[in-house]
Amino acid sequence: MKLDTSYQPAHFRWQLDGKVATITLDRPDRKNPLTFESYAELRDTFRALVQADNIKTIVLTGAGGNFCSGGDVHDIIGPLVGRDMAGLLDFTRMTGDLVKAMRACPQPIVAAVDGICVGAGAILAMASDIRFATPDSKAAFLFVRVGLAGCDMGACAMLPRIIGHGRASELLYTGRSLRADEGERWGFWNRLVASDALLTEAQAFARELASGPTFAHAMTKTMLHQEWDMGLDAAIEAEAQAQAICMQTQDFRRAYEAFVAKAKPVFEGN
Amino acid sequence: MKLDTSYQPAHFRWQLDGKVATITLDRPDRKNPLTFESYAELRDTFRALVQADNIKTIVLTGAGGNFCSGGDVHDIIGPLVGRDMAGLLDFTRMTGDLVKAMRACPQPIVAAVDGICVGAGAILAMASDIRFATPDSKAAFLFVRVGLAGCDMGACAMLPRIIGHGRASELLYTGRSLRADEGERWGFWNRLVASDALLTEAQAFARELASGPTFAHAMTKTMLHQEWDMGLDAAIEAEAQAQAICMQTQDFRRAYEAFVAKAKPVFEGN
Amino acid sequence: MKLDTSYQPAHFRWQLDGKVATITLDRPDRKNPLTFESYAELRDTFRALVQADNIKTIVLTGAGGNFCSGGDVHDIIGPLVGRDMAGLLDFTRMTGDLVKAMRACPQPIVAAVDGICVGAGAILAMASDIRFATPDSKAAFLFVRVGLAGCDMGACAMLPRIIGHGRASELLYTGRSLRADEGERWGFWNRLVASDALLTEAQAFARELASGPTFAHAMTKTMLHQEWDMGLDAAIEAEAQAQAICMQTQDFRRAYEAFVAKAKPVFEGN
Repeated sequence: MKLDTSYQPAHFRWQLDGKVATITLDRPDRKNPLTFESYAELRDTFRALVQADNIKTIVLTGAGGNFCSGGDVHDIIGPLVGRDMAGLLDFTRMTGDLVKAMRACPQPIVAAVDGICVGAGAILAMASDIRFATPDSKAAFLFVRVGLAGCDMGACAMLPRIIGHGRASELLYTGRSLRADEGERWGFWNRLVASDALLTEAQAFARELASGPTFAHAMTKTMLHQEWDMGLDAAIEAEAQAQAICMQTQDFRRAYEAFVAKAKPVFEGN
Repeated sequence: MKLDTSYQPAHFRWQLDGKVATITLDRPDRKNPLTFESYAELRDTFRALVQADNIKTIVLTGAGGNFCSGGDVHDIIGPLVGRDMAGLLDFTRMTGDLVKAMRACPQPIVAAVDGICVGAGAILAMASDIRFATPDSKAAFLFVRVGLAGCDMGACAMLPRIIGHGRASELLYTGRSLRADEGERWGFWNRLVASDALLTEAQAFARELASGPTFAHAMTKTMLHQEWDMGLDAAIEAEAQAQAICMQTQDFRRAYEAFVAKAKPVFEGN
Repeated sequence: MKLDTSYQPAHFRWQLDGKVATITLDRPDRKNPLTFESYAELRDTFRALVQADNIKTIVLTGAGGNFCSGGDVHDIIGPLVGRDMAGLLDFTRMTGDLVKAMRACPQPIVAAVDGICVGAGAILAMASDIRFATPDSKAAFLFVRVGLAGCDMGACAMLPRIIGHGRASELLYTGRSLRADEGERWGFWNRLVASDALLTEAQAFARELASGPTFAHAMTKTMLHQEWDMGLDAAIEAEAQAQAICMQTQDFRRAYEAFVAKAKPVFEGN
């Protein structure tokens, strides 16, 4: 799989501008649901991003004024109802593997969320690094509405760390919608943006990150993941090693030399 | 111990309406303090809830406009001052066992908090899953006021995950009161409600959860606990297994069939 | 190293009033940068505080309207650019050891932050127990601006626990300034104070803590550290032991006796 401008995934849109790739869930008549096939293709794409050193940040968005309506009732829930345990695990592990792949790729992921963002859609936003939304966004971890538990694709681990354990508990037990202003106040959304500016602003943010020291960004992402369940002293030692590695990059030298020359550094990601 | 409508605990009130049990700390003249006996009976009750599959959610509240004044100075602190280490550990482990039992029972717990909510009372609120309070509520982790540390019944682990490490540090070092509006803003309280509507609203919320897919709720509660110190990839695998289990419930099928029939699902908790 | 009123560190100011020590970064013409020497001396001082049982709380501040501009570009970044890996690790481990020492000393640390608080300066604030700032404070984890990663001195572990994972990610990837009001709203700052009242108020707060049960405060600090990566049940047992130890202090008895006598307890920290 070659993730360049010629990449044509079957189940979502792919656009590459410079170092920023935009992934657009694109089935707007049904608010961009996920299917078995799109889950698998997203997972494979995020896995392939580990090798795609031409790409430095990802924007993840949806077409037609909505982000993602989650696992499709007809295409996913129906077939699952008849599966045996091995078949169910195949599915839940595939969805979990998508989140693992999103956390393991070196590129920071910026979710650009308008309208409906529910079920697995809310998980895709949660599993991103940065989240922009609009005042019309409605995020809901609504697994409970289909008879399931809040523990889906890592939600019981990640959501409490983003918005706090009490607020996460409420959202996961009730499946209720998170209003946009609440989501900003609680730290789920990093920024609220008007609908017509959302994608532009998310891509500008992604471009800005992509022009930074991207080797270092990838290390930041790795360490945020690595230190999830480390003790604090161990985390400090892990960061001493990780940062020493970053101090051997040319970007560190470039920043210093630019400073001395009273210029703006031009980073190259190495 | 049979937790039905005939259950008559000696040290608090017990009320069972349908699938919702309400536990009321009921010594209003002293703002509902805890005693050795009430600690033990609460612990035993929450432990017994593991087997009480007639009960799906718990409301925890206090009588007479206050939640709980914590460990009684005369009944608890006085006797503790004279104890040896084995005797002290007996006490601190009993109180810790109450929190462990609250986290281990499958029923989500909704704390309904008015007025005074201090010391072990604040811990009972903290150890609940959902917290409703009134504008007059005053929560204080005031262990420091009686010469003790903030590390009581899990507070140094749980409070930072609910309101953030910096705010938790302030409350635990100073023992100061958390104002109701602060508590809401910080994510300690899920909702502020007028005093005269508090219990009604908490019970309505509990009833709503109890009418949901309660097997799945119990799994959500288990996983929020399980994943406390897991790495993120391990948590995602754990959720893949847990959710696959939930996909074998009839509630999952019921939700799907209701959706297809354009009806509202009726969950039965299995 | 004797940490009494005669202590005269070479690279910062030291002031001891009663049980409260104030450490002032004091190179105001350059906004109080850190150097190899000041890092080492701060580390050694915080390590020595473990034995300094005359001192019960620390105030950490900067001179001249700024807190700290971080690692000096000329004194630190320049020399680092030429170092080999062993030399780089010497440096990153020294800076990490400073944070470890701040978390390991028994005294709660109150950061009093005005103006610039960036890079390692932001880390010093983050690694404190309590953070007061002014409306003019500007905190920035700007490692990315010098080509480095956000994983510096424990930031990827600590910052997400203080302000939430999403907000921490934004600050660490972008290096942008945290406005004072945002920092208060997000729980990074415990309190915003006018510049001319900052030090007075931080010292008053520190004095208040120092007049409390300081043996218990030290235990609170230890347990906040210990429980960082413990499971919840293990944390509850750890607190049962820690609190039982505190119940054998005289301060616990003093609080009880004062209560019975309707007096205010006078704590002595033992």
